[in-house]
Amino acid sequence: MTLLNTETIAAISTPFGSAGIGKIRMSGPEAITIAASLFKSVKKEKDLREAASYTAHYGYIVDSKSGKEADEVICIIMKGPHSFTGEDVVELDCHGGMVPLQRVLDILLQNGARLAEPGEFSKRAFLNGRIDLAQAEGIMEVINSKTEKGLDVALNQLGGKLSSQVGLLKDKVIELMAYLEAAIDFPEDEVEGFKSKELGDKLYSIRDGIKKLLETSRQGKIYREGIKTVIVGKPNVGKSSLLNTLLEEKRAIVTDVPGTTRDIIEEFINIKGIPLKIIDTAGIRKTEDLVEKIGVKKAEETLKKADLILMMIDISQGLTEVDLMIYQLIKEKPLIVIVNKTDLPAKVNFSKLRKEFTGHPLLEISIKEDQGLNELKEAIIDEVLDEELKSDEEVFITRTRHKNALEHSLQAIKRVIKTYQKKLPYDFFTIDLRDCLMGLSDITGETLADDIIDRIFKDFCLGK
Amino acid sequence: MTLLNTETIAAISTPFGSAGIGKIRMSGPEAITIAASLFKSVKKEKDLREAASYTAHYGYIVDSKSGKEADEVICIIMKGPHSFTGEDVVELDCHGGMVPLQRVLDILLQNGARLAEPGEFSKRAFLNGRIDLAQAEGIMEVINSKTEKGLDVALNQLGGKLSSQVGLLKDKVIELMAYLEAAIDFPEDEVEGFKSKELGDKLYSIRDGIKKLLETSRQGKIYREGIKTVIVGKPNVGKSSLLNTLLEEKRAIVTDVPGTTRDIIEEFINIKGIPLKIIDTAGIRKTEDLVEKIGVKKAEETLKKADLILMMIDISQGLTEVDLMIYQLIKEKPLIVIVNKTDLPAKVNFSKLRKEFTGHPLLEISIKEDQGLNELKEAIIDEVLDEELKSDEEVFITRTRHKNALEHSLQAIKRVIKTYQKKLPYDFFTIDLRDCLMGLSDITGETLADDIIDRIFKDFCLGK
Repeated sequence: MTLLNTETIAAISTPFGSAGIGKIRMSGPEAITIAASLFKSVKKEKDLREAASYTAHYGYIVDSKSGKEADEVICIIMKGPHSFTGEDVVELDCHGGMVPLQRVLDILLQNGARLAEPGEFSKRAFLNGRIDLAQAEGIMEVINSKTEKGLDVALNQLGGKLSSQVGLLKDKVIELMAYLEAAIDFPEDEVEGFKSKELGDKLYSIRDGIKKLLETSRQGKIYREGIKTVIVGKPNVGKSSLLNTLLEEKRAIVTDVPGTTRDIIEEFINIKGIPLKIIDTAGIRKTEDLVEKIGVKKAEETLKKADLILMMIDISQGLTEVDLMIYQLIKEKPLIVIVNKTDLPAKVNFSKLRKEFTGHPLLEISIKEDQGLNELKEAIIDEVLDEELKSDEEVFITRTRHKNALEHSLQAIKRVIKTYQKKLPYDFFTIDLRDCLMGLSDITGETLADDIIDRIFKDFCLGK
Repeated sequence: MTLLNTETIAAISTPFGSAGIGKIRMSGPEAITIAASLFKSVKKEKDLREAASYTAHYGYIVDSKSGKEADEVICIIMKGPHSFTGEDVVELDCHGGMVPLQRVLDILLQNGARLAEPGEFSKRAFLNGRIDLAQAEGIMEVINSKTEKGLDVALNQLGGKLSSQVGLLKDKVIELMAYLEAAIDFPEDEVEGFKSKELGDKLYSIRDGIKKLLETSRQGKIYREGIKTVIVGKPNVGKSSLLNTLLEEKRAIVTDVPGTTRDIIEEFINIKGIPLKIIDTAGIRKTEDLVEKIGVKKAEETLKKADLILMMIDISQGLTEVDLMIYQLIKEKPLIVIVNKTDLPAKVNFSKLRKEFTGHPLLEISIKEDQGLNELKEAIIDEVLDEELKSDEEVFITRTRHKNALEHSLQAIKRVIKTYQKKLPYDFFTIDLRDCLMGLSDITGETLADDIIDRIFKDFCLGK
C-alpha cells in the first residue's frame, strides 16, 4: 500500500461520444461514501453505505450545490478487495452524452474525488496485487485488439498465461540459485552435481524456455500492431480495386457504426486473423500511383516502413519499364507479386514473369472476376507467419518491453552457461543468474522501478 | 403487450471507440437464460437464472462454439418489470474495444438474441408503459444536450414534468367533455352553467394553458438545437479571433478528449447556458471572408439559415462599402453589430455608427485587449431569450412534434370557444373538444399510430 491509495479517483470509462449509456468509474477509500452522499434512490430511501457488494441501484445523482438532479443513473457497488482495483469501486451508468457525463464527473470531483490519470485504475489493480504488470498490459491489448486471434492472445495475457509461463522459468532460476548458494555455503555437505550433467540440463532448459518465448515475439507483434503493408504498382494496375475488395469483405461483418469509427476499422484488413495495416490508404485511393506522383525518394521512405509489400502487375500491359523500376526498389523486402487482369489477353508469358521475380511468390488474380483472392490471402499468411509456430499457441510475446526483458535474460543465462562450460566455481554464476531473474521479473513487474511503472500506465487510456 | 416483446434484443449501448469499458445491453424474455448459458463465473459456479435482481457478477462470456472465453465481463441482472424496458434486462460490461464488443455481441446473436433496432430499448419501455412518449424523447435530449441548462430541461422532460403539465390540460378537457355529455344526455337534470361564465372560464383556461406551453417552444428549441449563428464581416475584421476567443473559454472547462469528439464539442459555444451553433466555422477559419470568396448568392443562402447574425466592423478602418453591402443582406434578421479593434484609433464616429445601424444592438469590443466580451454575451442572451420567460421555468417545448400537436389543440380549443361564443348547442362542442384532446394525447403518445411511433424511435441511437 502506498500513499496514492488514500485518494479516491474518478473518470469517464466509456468512449466519448453520444450513445445510450456512459459509465463513470470511481475507486478508493471514499468511493462509496461520496456516492452515498450524492445518490437519491427513485423509490424508498436507500443508504449506499449499507448496500451489499456487487449490487446495482437505480436513482439520481444530485448536484450537492444546487440540490437538483444531475442525471438518472444505475449505481453499481463493488467493495474491495473483490473489485477491479482491489479498492472500493463505484460505477455510475449515466446517459451517454458529453454534458450529463461531464456534469456527474464534475460533481464527484467537487465532493472529494480527484480526476484519475490515464491507466490509474489499472495501476491500482497492479499495486494492490490484483494483477501483475503483464496482465495489466493485457487489458490494453484486449481493448485495442484488431482481430479475433489478436483478442485471444490478449485475453490469455490478461488471464495470466504469459505470466505463468514466465513464472515457471523464474521458479527454475530461483531453484537453481538456492541450490548453488547451498553448495557454496555448505561445500562439506557435498551437494552433488555441480559440474554434472544435471546442472547443465537445468541451464539449457532455462535458455530454451526463454528462446521459445522469444520466438513468438515476431508473430505476437503482428497480432498486436498488424502487418504494415504497402500496395505498389504503376497507375491503373488495380491497386485501389484490390484495397476495396479486401475492405469490402470486412465491412460486411462489421455492424453499422458512425463514420469516424469506420475509418479506424478500415485501417485494418483482417486476413484470417492477421491484421493487415495498409499504409497510405488515402494515397492509394487518391493518386492511383505511388512512385510517379510522390517521387522515388518519398516512395522509398514509405517502403522502408513496410513489413510486407504487395506489388501489382497488369498482365494485359505486359512487363514495363516502370514495373521493373519499382521492383528494383523493393526486391529485398518481404514481397508478393500479384499479376492482375488475367481476364484480359496476356501480353507477357507467365514463366517469363516467374523468372523475372525469382524468389518471391507470384500470383495470378482477376479482381474484376473475383478470381485468385483466396490464394492471395493464403500467400499473405504464408509470407507473414512463422512456419514453426503452432496455430494453437496460446502465449505470444506482443510487447517490445517484454521482448527486451527476455533478451536481457537470454544474454544473462548464456553467460551462466559459458561459466558452466568453463567449469568455474559456483561464485561466478550468481550475478548472471540474478540478472536473468531480473529480466523475467520485469515482465510481471515485481522488480521494476516506480518511474518505469508510471510510464507504462501513462500509455493506458483514461478511465481504465 | 405486442408480439414484438417475445423477442430478445441486444446491442452495444456505449459509444464506439476505444476505452476502458463498453456495455452490451440485452432485453427480453430470454435475456437472463441466454446470459446464464454463456456466463462462466470466475470463482464458484453460479447460475445467473437464480441471481437476484439488481446484482452484478464477475466472470467470462464463453463462446458457445469454441468453448473459449470471449471476454471478461461484469454482468448486471435487472429483472422485469423493474428495469428500463420493463422486461428482463442483462447488461454486460466488457472491455471497451471494437473487437471484444463485437465478438460478445455476435455470441449473443448466435444464441437467441437479435440485434436491436435504433431506439428499440426505449420503444419497449414505452410500449410496456414504463415511460410515456414525451419521456422517451427526453432520453435522447438528455444524451444530446449541449449545455447544463439544456440538460436540466431534458431531465425534466424525462422525469415526466412536461407530461404532467400536458396531463393537467387533458384532465380539464376530459372533465369538460364528461360534463357536456351529461348535459346533452340529461338536459332535464338542469346541468347548470352551459352558457354560463363557468363554462367560458374552463375553455379560456384550457386555451391559456396550451398557449403558455407553446410560448416556451422558441426557447425550448434553442436549448435543444442551439442558436444557428453566423459571424459576418469583411476580411481581417476579426471573425476568427472572435470565434477562437469564444471557443477557448469552452475548451478550458472540457476535460481532455480525443480529436474527433473535440470537433463535436466545438460546434457549440456555451453562452450562459445557451448553445450557439456557429455555422460554417471551417469557412470562417479558412477564408476569413464570407461574402467575397463564396459570392453574394451563396452568402445569402447561409444567412437564410441563421437564427442570429453577428456582424463585425473594424472601427480602425471606418465604415466601408463592403460593410454596408453586407448590412443590406442581413438588416432584417436578428442581428448584433460588433465594433471591433477599439484598441486602435477610430476612423468613424460611434454615434454615426449607431445611426447607421438603428434598431440593432451595437457593441464596442477589443478582442485583442479582451474588452467588451461579457457585454457581447449579455447582448446575445438579450437578443435570443424571451423576456417573459422566467429563467427558472422547468418545462419547455423542445420538439417540433410537440409544438405541432399543441398548435393542433390550440386551434381546436379556439373553435370550441367560437362555438361557445355563438351560444350553439353542446352537440357542436364535441368534435372540436375531442380534437383538442387528441393533440394533447399525441405528445404523451397514447393515441399515436404505430407507424408514427416507429418513426420517432428510429431517430434514437443504437443501443438506447
